[in-house]
Amino acid sequence: MAFDHLSTTFAALADPTRRAILERLAGGEKTVTELAEPFQMSLPAVSKHLKVLERAGLIERGREAQWRPCRLNAAPLKEVANWVEHYRHFWEESFDRLADYLKELQGGDKERDPNP
Amino acid sequence: MAFDHLSTTFAALADPTRRAILERLAGGEKTVTELAEPFQMSLPAVSKHLKVLERAGLIERGREAQWRPCRLNAAPLKEVANWVEHYRHFWEESFDRLADYLKELQGGDKERDPNP
Repeated sequence: MAFDHLSTTFAALADPTRRAILERLAGGEKTVTELAEPFQMSLPAVSKHLKVLERAGLIERGREAQWRPCRLNAAPLKEVANWVEHYRHFWEESFDRLADYLKELQGGDKERDPNP
Repeated sequence: MAFDHLSTTFAALADPTRRAILERLAGGEKTVTELAEPFQMSLPAVSKHLKVLERAGLIERGREAQWRPCRLNAAPLKEVANWVEHYRHFWEESFDRLADYLKELQGGDKERDPNP
């Protein structure tokens, strides 16, 4: 199997803490210590999550040895959006079917109405 | 941790075979045998993938014991689309920055042009 980037991205997103980290980084770059704070997690635990996000290309880290700020990289999320977009008509279709059904119900009411 | 549906969905999508199964089901409902065919996989291997997709609510299966056709259920994909949509401005922003840079380069060329 060739390198499968989309699977790596999906696997990285399959964790609520990692998605929460991305959400925090959407507000601007942060250090590991800043990221660890709200999660009440040890630095090594956060570092492990960051490594998964970094491997998936979802974050980038500064080069400074002491202070390596993390920054969101949204490019892999664009691939996710493109992939999921192919299925949009399926969920919109189910919504349309519901709307048709409701219209049908209303139509039924009108038929019973003696003053159209 | 409460039941985390989005993580279950992302984990189910983190496999190229499972995404290929969804793609085939987008063409209409299919039996396990029909789904197994193009993948050169054993039926138990395909069944295992189907169980993951079913647990994530991405497919539904008929009730007939012998012939349980699989059908795509796109509702969890709508959640994925909604989630990823929050990050759209990040990748569009990077594209805008590139477009600005290219415009700047072209502007530079024009400044050197003696006949504006």
